Amino acid sequence: MNAESAHIEALRALAASPAARGLADDAAVLDFGGDALVLTLDTVVEGVHFLPDDPPGDVAWKLVAVNVSDLAAKGADPVGCLYSHALGEDLWDTAFLAGLAEACAHFAIPLLGGDTVRMPKNAPRSFSLTALGRGPKGRPAPARGDAQPGDRLWVSGTIGDAGLGLAILTGARTAATGCAQVLARRYRRPEPSPALGRALAPLVNAMMDVSDGLLVDAARMARASDCAIGIAADAVPLSAEAREFTGDTLKSRLAAMTAGDDYCLLFSAPADRSERIREVAANLGRSLYAIGSVSAGQGVTLLHFGDPVPLPKRLGYEH
Amino acid sequence: MNAESAHIEALRALAASPAARGLADDAAVLDFGGDALVLTLDTVVEGVHFLPDDPPGDVAWKLVAVNVSDLAAKGADPVGCLYSHALGEDLWDTAFLAGLAEACAHFAIPLLGGDTVRMPKNAPRSFSLTALGRGPKGRPAPARGDAQPGDRLWVSGTIGDAGLGLAILTGARTAATGCAQVLARRYRRPEPSPALGRALAPLVNAMMDVSDGLLVDAARMARASDCAIGIAADAVPLSAEAREFTGDTLKSRLAAMTAGDDYCLLFSAPADRSERIREVAANLGRSLYAIGSVSAGQGVTLLHFGDPVPLPKRLGYEH
Repeated sequence: MNAESAHIEALRALAASPAARGLADDAAVLDFGGDALVLTLDTVVEGVHFLPDDPPGDVAWKLVAVNVSDLAAKGADPVGCLYSHALGEDLWDTAFLAGLAEACAHFAIPLLGGDTVRMPKNAPRSFSLTALGRGPKGRPAPARGDAQPGDRLWVSGTIGDAGLGLAILTGARTAATGCAQVLARRYRRPEPSPALGRALAPLVNAMMDVSDGLLVDAARMARASDCAIGIAADAVPLSAEAREFTGDTLKSRLAAMTAGDDYCLLFSAPADRSERIREVAANLGRSLYAIGSVSAGQGVTLLHFGDPVPLPKRLGYEH
Repeated sequence: MNAESAHIEALRALAASPAARGLADDAAVLDFGGDALVLTLDTVVEGVHFLPDDPPGDVAWKLVAVNVSDLAAKGADPVGCLYSHALGEDLWDTAFLAGLAEACAHFAIPLLGGDTVRMPKNAPRSFSLTALGRGPKGRPAPARGDAQPGDRLWVSGTIGDAGLGLAILTGARTAATGCAQVLARRYRRPEPSPALGRALAPLVNAMMDVSDGLLVDAARMARASDCAIGIAADAVPLSAEAREFTGDTLKSRLAAMTAGDDYCLLFSAPADRSERIREVAANLGRSLYAIGSVSAGQGVTLLHFGDPVPLPKRLGYEH
C-alpha cells in the first residue's frame, strides 16, 4: 500500500456516515429535505491534472466537467457548484473565468459561490470545485457496488482518446493535425452527459464514471460489487481518430483501456434490459457499447476475440 | 480596484442565481427538497492562511472551523463536509487527519467525501473544504444585507485575540507564556458556534461572521444593507489576555478591530429584542456584546467614549 492508499484508508475510517458510501463511490449521496442530494468535490492541480500551457478556458471546462461526470454517474441532475480559485496572472484568470462561464452554461450548473485565494509566489495553480446534484426520485442513486452476476457491462463513449490527446500535447507522440486536434480536445474538454446518466439510472444495477482508466475502474466496480467482470477487448469502442493514429491492435487497445480521462459512463445492467437501454441512448442521440459481462467471482479478466489476454501490470491511474 | 477585487466582480456577474446571494454573503442558500441548503467552500493555503510550522492538527481544525463559522452565520446546523487533501509527508498527513477527526466530532459535521491529490514537489500545501448545513425552517437564512436603522449591533466573542496570536507565532511580538498560549490557540483553533447562530437566527436582522477584521466586516454589512453602522470602540470586547499583553488603549483597540481571524458572529437586531437575545446566549453559556448601532446613511463610523475617531486606513484583510 502506498502512502496515498494508506491515507485514503484512514479517511474511510473517518467517513462512517452511510452518505459517504465508504468513500468508494463517485459522490456522496444523502437525504436532504426528502430529496437525494448528490455531492462531489474534485481538485485539479497544475502539473498533475493539467499542463502549464493548457488554455485556461480548457482548464476551467475540465474542472467543471470532471465533477459533472461524477453527478452523471449517480444519475443526478446538476443543481449548482461552488469553486475555489487560486489567483494568478490577470489575463490567465480572465480567460479561465470565460471558460468557467461556458462550462457552467453548457452543463446547466449555475455557480453558487466559492472562495478566491492568493497563492505564494511560484506555487502551482490549483482549483477545487464542489458540484451538487439532485439524484433520482423514489430509488437510490446508482452505486458502483451493485453489479450482479448475469449483468451486461457497457460504456457510453470511445475509450483512450484523452490519453492519446495527452501524449500528443506533451510531445510524447506526434499525429497528423486533424487527428491531433480531435484527440487533444478529448483530453481538454471532456463531455459527460448528466441527461444520459439520469435516463440510465432506473435501468442499471451499478454505474460509475471512467476517469482513471477503463481497466482500473472496472476492477473497482468488480471489487465493490464482489463480482467478476469480463471485458472483450475487441468490443471496446475506439474512435476513428484513435484507429487512424495508432492502428487497431491489442497493444493499442490495452493502451486505450489504461489511459484514463475518458469521463464516460461505465455501467452494468441485466441483459434483458439491453433493448430499453439502447432506446434510451438513441433518444438522446448517444451511442452505447456492450463490452463485457458480470459473473460470480472476483477481479477483471480480459479476452481478445475469445482468447484470454493477461492483464497489463498497470491498469490505470491508481490512487 | 485590485486584481482580486476585479476577479470577484467578474465572478459576481457569473453567479446570477439568487442562491448565490451575489457572492456577497458567507454562504450560498438554496431551496432543496423544501429545506434550506446552506453551502460554503473555503480553501486554506500554507504561507497564506496558515504557517508552515503550525501543528497539522490545528490546520485541519481551522479548515473545518472557518467553514463551520460560515454555517453558523447563516443560522445553519452542520450536516456534513467534503474536503480535498494535498498529499505531503506521511507523518504530517496523519497528524492532519487526527485533527480533522477531532474537529468533525467537535462540530458534529461528518465527513462525507472529497478528493486526495498529489502535488508537485515543493508546492505549498493547500486544502479545500465544503461544508453543508440545514438553514432555519420557515424563514430565510439571515443575510448580511438586512441590517435596519434602529438596530443594535452585537458581536459574540472577544476581538483581536487571533491577530495577537498570529503576531506571537510569527515572532513579530513576544508575550508572557500563559498569554501567548491562549492567544496562539485563538489563532489556531477558532471556536464558532452553530448552536448560537441557530438560536440567534430568528431574532436578528443581519448576521455574518467576523473573519477579515471587525471594521472591514462591519463595513461590508453596512454596504450590503445600505445603512450606516456606528461602533463604540470602547465597547468592543477584549480578552483578559489581550489586555494584559497590549494594555487597553485606543491604539490596541484599533489593532484588534482590524486584525481578523476572530470567527465570531457579528449581527444586528432590533433594540427591543436585546433582552431575548441575551437570554438565548445565556442559555447556551455564551457571552454577547453590544458594540454599536445601525442608522440611515452609509459606511462605518467610530467613537471612543463618545469622541469621534477617524477610521484607520486599513480596516482589515481586504479582498
